[in-house]
Amino acid sequence: MTTRKIHRRAQADYRWEGVENRPYKEDERALFKAVTRQVLFSDPEMAGELRYFEVAPGGFSTLERHEHMHAVLILRGSGHCLVGDEVRPLETRDLVTVPPMTWHQFRATQGEPLGFLCMVNAQRDKPQLPTDEELAKLEKNPEVAKFLRGM
Amino acid sequence: MTTRKIHRRAQADYRWEGVENRPYKEDERALFKAVTRQVLFSDPEMAGELRYFEVAPGGFSTLERHEHMHAVLILRGSGHCLVGDEVRPLETRDLVTVPPMTWHQFRATQGEPLGFLCMVNAQRDKPQLPTDEELAKLEKNPEVAKFLRGM
Repeated sequence: MTTRKIHRRAQADYRWEGVENRPYKEDERALFKAVTRQVLFSDPEMAGELRYFEVAPGGFSTLERHEHMHAVLILRGSGHCLVGDEVRPLETRDLVTVPPMTWHQFRATQGEPLGFLCMVNAQRDKPQLPTDEELAKLEKNPEVAKFLRGM
Repeated sequence: MTTRKIHRRAQADYRWEGVENRPYKEDERALFKAVTRQVLFSDPEMAGELRYFEVAPGGFSTLERHEHMHAVLILRGSGHCLVGDEVRPLETRDLVTVPPMTWHQFRATQGEPLGFLCMVNAQRDKPQLPTDEELAKLEKNPEVAKFLRGM
């Protein structure tokens, strides 16, 4: 039997009662930087999951792609995202759809945190990371290259 | 082929670019009052949907139950909810889980709008409305009766 907590109170600084705040460890390839994750909703009865990610100023999420989609709502702050070969400025409450197998990354480029909700399918494939060749191909677009260098 | 808009900008007053704002018509049974709905994410590739509901001050969502779950994040304002036989005060960013087959309602009781995100399964059953007998049973709890009268 699943025990469900009906009400989780919001806490200061975009934390939630009883929700673990998981920092992503930075690795040697520096594929992401200064990102934390909180899983807000995940339940055997639900086909989707809702997570909250927060990127500290100057940080960025992993540059990746996968078959599953992302449905993103910016909850806090502002920044930029890369989706495919498009770079977009993001403001609070903007919506971002990441289609299947589309390179994407979120960056906190404006000296403030970028916090966003991300809905995904509970059953989903693992992210793919770019090879050096794929990264070089992405960087051929000057706007994308600028984004990947941190704007 | 599905054409997906990658970026939808937030607009004033919790509206979104290209997202239809659907008022719920009030019916003679007054099962809900002053509620609007915007579907933020719905896609054949996604197992979940994300909607934004806004209840105007003094308004309330339908008192209903169903097999599918609701995963709710309060995005704007404050109010109260009923989940099962529990009445809870709600603040911005609070999380509410509505388990299967549990009576629930959201009310904007504090003189301000109550806006919330609601994640559901894309494939889901239709809501059930309470019979007069079920309503009478709910109202036997004084706290629930007070909530249903508008606090």
